[in-house]
Amino acid sequence: MSDPSLPVVRLRPKSRARDIRHGHPWAYADDLVLDRRTRALPPGSLAVLEDSERNPLGLVAVNPASKIAARLLDRDSSAEVGPAWFAARLSRAQELRARLYPTPHYRLVHAEADGLPGVVIDRFGEAAVIQPNAAWADRLIEPLTEALVELTGVETVVMNGMARARRLEGLENAARLLRGVLDGPVEVPMNGAVYLADLMGGQKTGLYYDQRDNHAFAARLAGGGRVLDVFSHVGGFALAALVAGATEALAIDGSQAALDLAARGAEASGVADRLTTRRADAFEALAAIGGEGARFDLVICDPPAFAPSRQALERGLRAYERLARLAAPLVSGGGFLVLCSCSHAADLTRFSAASIRGIGRAGRAAQLLHVGFAGPDHPQLPQLAESGYLKALFFRLD
Amino acid sequence: MSDPSLPVVRLRPKSRARDIRHGHPWAYADDLVLDRRTRALPPGSLAVLEDSERNPLGLVAVNPASKIAARLLDRDSSAEVGPAWFAARLSRAQELRARLYPTPHYRLVHAEADGLPGVVIDRFGEAAVIQPNAAWADRLIEPLTEALVELTGVETVVMNGMARARRLEGLENAARLLRGVLDGPVEVPMNGAVYLADLMGGQKTGLYYDQRDNHAFAARLAGGGRVLDVFSHVGGFALAALVAGATEALAIDGSQAALDLAARGAEASGVADRLTTRRADAFEALAAIGGEGARFDLVICDPPAFAPSRQALERGLRAYERLARLAAPLVSGGGFLVLCSCSHAADLTRFSAASIRGIGRAGRAAQLLHVGFAGPDHPQLPQLAESGYLKALFFRLD
Repeated sequence: MSDPSLPVVRLRPKSRARDIRHGHPWAYADDLVLDRRTRALPPGSLAVLEDSERNPLGLVAVNPASKIAARLLDRDSSAEVGPAWFAARLSRAQELRARLYPTPHYRLVHAEADGLPGVVIDRFGEAAVIQPNAAWADRLIEPLTEALVELTGVETVVMNGMARARRLEGLENAARLLRGVLDGPVEVPMNGAVYLADLMGGQKTGLYYDQRDNHAFAARLAGGGRVLDVFSHVGGFALAALVAGATEALAIDGSQAALDLAARGAEASGVADRLTTRRADAFEALAAIGGEGARFDLVICDPPAFAPSRQALERGLRAYERLARLAAPLVSGGGFLVLCSCSHAADLTRFSAASIRGIGRAGRAAQLLHVGFAGPDHPQLPQLAESGYLKALFFRLD
Repeated sequence: MSDPSLPVVRLRPKSRARDIRHGHPWAYADDLVLDRRTRALPPGSLAVLEDSERNPLGLVAVNPASKIAARLLDRDSSAEVGPAWFAARLSRAQELRARLYPTPHYRLVHAEADGLPGVVIDRFGEAAVIQPNAAWADRLIEPLTEALVELTGVETVVMNGMARARRLEGLENAARLLRGVLDGPVEVPMNGAVYLADLMGGQKTGLYYDQRDNHAFAARLAGGGRVLDVFSHVGGFALAALVAGATEALAIDGSQAALDLAARGAEASGVADRLTTRRADAFEALAAIGGEGARFDLVICDPPAFAPSRQALERGLRAYERLARLAAPLVSGGGFLVLCSCSHAADLTRFSAASIRGIGRAGRAAQLLHVGFAGPDHPQLPQLAESGYLKALFFRLD
């Protein structure tokens, strides 16, 4: 039985009841009967979702201000979203990660696929960063935090509310310390290297865990070679490559703060003597290095999303092609080129085609060795194809 | 300058000259001017390919009997396909694999992507298996073998001419020893386990190197659990899982010979006490095990190609769905299901959709953790999208 005090929201006839029964976790604003009562629900309210025949579909979080008007929290309409509920979801998420990784450094919760819609939690040893990117999670951040601390024993919890997704939910940007203290960047062991992550000031939550397996694959190609890591952030690819035996690495990024962390990570990883950092615009730097005639055995380009939306797709694809065209000439004969995209809108087929065009325009022939996606601490809900946002293409050039 | 004694074959106007200039390695029968002289060329003849304006495009191997009428061997029309040419191609291929793998056990040559169209060579330590699946390679198997022995020092070379592709080239099936001796299956170290590969009698060339990274990923999920390996062949997934700490594994296959090799591999890997083999039809066995109520923490289904051609696609997709539907109920709560397809025709999108439907029809909710393809010793030519034949989907079920 569902809680009789909960409001009921209803799907229009012929909307996506069937999809939701089959595991789709969202009802869009168009799907809902948006009567005055539903429209008046405060963003993030819990409600029972019913189909047009008044059969309950589950417990949802409603946000009349968002295009995603209802997010399924539980197929059991009578579920109580309290400490025990949060603990069960977090525990299921932690069980998977504990099996996959030797130390507690990973994405602990990846939103819908981990049964916590819109919630991202990254674990950094004794600290955790929560991104409440949906209104319901913003409202219930306190019991969520409590359950997180209880289960994991983390001492420090940061709330990072800087994601673009929050705007779509009508939420303000915000970042604050929810528990404990934070004195400076934290050390994160990954692929044999040690990274420095700034949990308050950094991009996203300070470190890109999603690239871990791609860092590892690139490191297999790096031994004995020179590495160029473009859009390096805190040195994800460069440090893994150096630890795996690269003779030197040049990390290029637009952010001095990120490069300083990369340098500190190199220090902590014992490879500081082999890392050079350069603050520069990536496109300009690639063109300049190409002009100088410098060559590298492994070049990685891991740019920010050039095609963050469907509207930006064509322009984004041109940018990916241009990047490939500028990067390919810097790769030595028989060397490797790694091209990444974290654009939802540019799917694997489109991103590959743009990359291959760029390499071809640089006059280089290529073998495609490997295609990597986000690591398994970033699971996807099979029903949400768009969550396969990260792609990494590993080429060998003649 | 090209060899004036070589015949010339010409593209029709408006055929794929541009594609070939951009790296596409084939001209189809429809693309060529198939005059009497060209038609009379013995299958596998070398020739110079010209566009319709008589500009040379490169050196090709011609087979008037095949739909793939010309395969590009070299952009340099004057290249001489002799010992030095083979040595250069093999050496480039070996350089990559030596970087990737600790011992010489890998696919050494993956056809077009390694510059040897239609040629597959697998290396098993002191032995190698050549599949000459195009007429030109069948004709030139002797200098190819000579170069292979010279470069790698292998003592035993097997010619495996059993692939379906040979029929399309008008080649007979054949298998014979080209060099050395072969007394029984050879041991192959991979992912910490030891496999037994039968180089003369086995499916393909006796071992599926393409699944190595997927075996490794599955092994990360296997620790402390019970494993069911369906279509096990020589135990690819089962042995890797047992070595990684699975408590027991049941391997099911239709071939007793393959299961005997799996058992010998388990012996060689020190895990024989934890492996059970069962010769059975996979679908019947899954239904039977489901009826008994047995559950496993990791279930893998790695069937032969259910959709080997475009004509067989719909039927193949139904078979993949049925397999997923039968396998999902055998997975314990929180356990893992790995579904593989080696069907060219069933692309990732279609195969995923069929798998997800099957899991859904079994009443199970899923997270998609990982998508794996063939390992990097199976590179692809970017221009031949169809070479991405192998897909492995890693699900966690509620």
